[in-house]
Amino acid sequence: MMDLGAYINELGTKARKAAIEMARVDSATKRDALMRIAEAVEKHSGQILESNARDLAAGRAASLNEAMLDRLTLTEKRITAMARAIAEIADQPDPVGEVEHSVIRPSGIRVGRMRVPIGVIGIIYEARPNVTTDAAALCLKAGNACVLRGGKEALHSNVALARVVSETAAGAGLPPDAVQLVGVTDRETVALMAQAEGLIDVIIPRGGEALIRSVVAAAKVPVIKHYKGVCHTYVDADADLDMAQKICFNAKVQRPGVCNAMETLLVHEKIAGAFLPPLFAQYRQAGVSLRGCSKTIEIDSNVLRATEEDWYAEYLDLILAVRVVSSLDEAIEHIRMYGSAHTDAIVTRNIQAAERFVREVDSSSVMVNVSTRFSDGGEYGLGAEIGISTDKLHARGPMGAADLTTTKWVVTGDGAIRQ
Amino acid sequence: MMDLGAYINELGTKARKAAIEMARVDSATKRDALMRIAEAVEKHSGQILESNARDLAAGRAASLNEAMLDRLTLTEKRITAMARAIAEIADQPDPVGEVEHSVIRPSGIRVGRMRVPIGVIGIIYEARPNVTTDAAALCLKAGNACVLRGGKEALHSNVALARVVSETAAGAGLPPDAVQLVGVTDRETVALMAQAEGLIDVIIPRGGEALIRSVVAAAKVPVIKHYKGVCHTYVDADADLDMAQKICFNAKVQRPGVCNAMETLLVHEKIAGAFLPPLFAQYRQAGVSLRGCSKTIEIDSNVLRATEEDWYAEYLDLILAVRVVSSLDEAIEHIRMYGSAHTDAIVTRNIQAAERFVREVDSSSVMVNVSTRFSDGGEYGLGAEIGISTDKLHARGPMGAADLTTTKWVVTGDGAIRQ
Repeated sequence: MMDLGAYINELGTKARKAAIEMARVDSATKRDALMRIAEAVEKHSGQILESNARDLAAGRAASLNEAMLDRLTLTEKRITAMARAIAEIADQPDPVGEVEHSVIRPSGIRVGRMRVPIGVIGIIYEARPNVTTDAAALCLKAGNACVLRGGKEALHSNVALARVVSETAAGAGLPPDAVQLVGVTDRETVALMAQAEGLIDVIIPRGGEALIRSVVAAAKVPVIKHYKGVCHTYVDADADLDMAQKICFNAKVQRPGVCNAMETLLVHEKIAGAFLPPLFAQYRQAGVSLRGCSKTIEIDSNVLRATEEDWYAEYLDLILAVRVVSSLDEAIEHIRMYGSAHTDAIVTRNIQAAERFVREVDSSSVMVNVSTRFSDGGEYGLGAEIGISTDKLHARGPMGAADLTTTKWVVTGDGAIRQ
Repeated sequence: MMDLGAYINELGTKARKAAIEMARVDSATKRDALMRIAEAVEKHSGQILESNARDLAAGRAASLNEAMLDRLTLTEKRITAMARAIAEIADQPDPVGEVEHSVIRPSGIRVGRMRVPIGVIGIIYEARPNVTTDAAALCLKAGNACVLRGGKEALHSNVALARVVSETAAGAGLPPDAVQLVGVTDRETVALMAQAEGLIDVIIPRGGEALIRSVVAAAKVPVIKHYKGVCHTYVDADADLDMAQKICFNAKVQRPGVCNAMETLLVHEKIAGAFLPPLFAQYRQAGVSLRGCSKTIEIDSNVLRATEEDWYAEYLDLILAVRVVSSLDEAIEHIRMYGSAHTDAIVTRNIQAAERFVREVDSSSVMVNVSTRFSDGGEYGLGAEIGISTDKLHARGPMGAADLTTTKWVVTGDGAIRQ
């Protein structure tokens, strides 16, 4: 039997050595390596698709559901999109080496904060093979090494992708162990990675709430994560109702299965009677099931009664919870109580209401007059995203390459001594 | 018997409520409140000194050592210095509300990152009463609430100080529970604070390694910390030897009991024979005990032989470990292996050596041609410091008020929906 502890320890030790080398690699080499990786992924699409076909066959035999099979499926088109994402990351400015606020102090020393790689990033994810290339590319761009642990359903696809990435990286002058995939899928490896203190600097889990809770429960290494996205849209008394209708429809219906889709709609009581009936009609046409508070049911008696659990629910489906509130304060309080600090939006023409909402709603993304669906690294200009954080420290919201760096103080002088 | 769990839960719940209010307080009110707190601390120096006298009497009765009693002692002069530190923090720019990199994206949305308070900060510390006012002032400046847990030796002093701070804060329009002191000193309260998930957002422990390890072992809340400061100075082959001698003397001798004092001196073999004898003579005059590698002992046979433990040691005393190395690489490797990622310096006239040292030494402060003693929030321009981090995430090195903030994404638009 394989000694999994020794195996993860070996990957981590190699990653740590690779990270030291990666921190020395210059920007041009990193950019060039990523461009070559993008090309190589497209060039090897045949063998990647063959590996993916094995995963899909095994997945069908194991009766995976359609949504899971869809996430697992690679096509020529999806591989092209993956390659394009890598090339986009290659073309971003290098976050490493930037010095912020370099100043000369009264003592004569010069003090600044330099952006540097974090070191070794552990990524734990589920069935989507594109995470393998996205995560590897972002980690390399930021000068890190990474240890990737994908879901067992995608093992053959991930092995094929990781081999293309690491062989191409090594051919382009990066350390061969800068990208390593955990080659076994025993559940135990998740906990072992999360406990690899001194070898892995941070773990970023991507996937369902159960996976993420299991990582956090086991972790000794810092974890950056979000558990779920219970996103709210609050339609204020002063909202432009046409705009609000478009935003609310988009936020719920455009792609209901993702974490930035709206799950709860809050509506000010002054405009609820005028606003909700036409919106509900539109939702019903799109197949959305509605669950509401008593005031919502007074407006539309066909709405199901929402339970306390509905306010906490991340449906990831065509279901919406609706609550009529009597004030902006009540809306903010509802979001504070039931929200997940992911993404929450207000629709209003009132600048004071917008300012208060932005200031007082303590979520990683706070929005005014836009759809919550914009909460995304690509839409924010980060290129691909490595994940979304609802934590308080280090990074919040969609995280790009710069969030995979940290800083160190650089102090220079001409013989200065402390008096 | 007191239910300590319920007590910490109550403090945390009050702090959470106060944090919501603190986040709304404008800059002028925070500045004014801190200025009034600075004045009040000086004005109430009589009763603060009386409380301190009770702690000192108890400390002497308990046979605390002189260093501990010194850290515990307040005087009129020290209280004035504490008040001045609060006033300096008051006068700093408010870190909250600043928006970084606000840009308009192709979709038409405007995206920026706004600096916001973290929420509730827990500070766990030992015998120094000045931490009470420093920490409270920095937390308030950054719009946070805090829960302070000082050492049992300083309880009366801390109660007196915290009362002045929180009563003055409340009188100046801040929430009365923004600054709370844990009023009991049972050891259990440390673990209870470190486990107060959802109530305390981050714990910053300040003190000896044993305290910090006990906090980390118990913690479910994120902890920002450093365990110890094993600071190195590397004197390169191309160093200006006069400058190097002044720096090395200052780094070891000027204040040996603090975390940024040099503990290990690394010297290039080319200049060791010329450099070490006069420096050692100077050290011996200052009472420094020397422990060296075999090459050091070849140069000076009166140096004690260093053991493996010496390279890991944080002496906090007039003791120095000395190693002669054959290259910059060996120096960097030594620091990587034995260092604590606190503060490490190179002395050299060679720009390539300096650049490589800065890039490859992965410490929270990296220095060129200055004494490690400069690693300090005040010297870096942060005003007082809340602590020093050698962690990889969120903050590294000395931390000021801005390190007690986080960011959120603010997205605004005019009805934008995702296509």
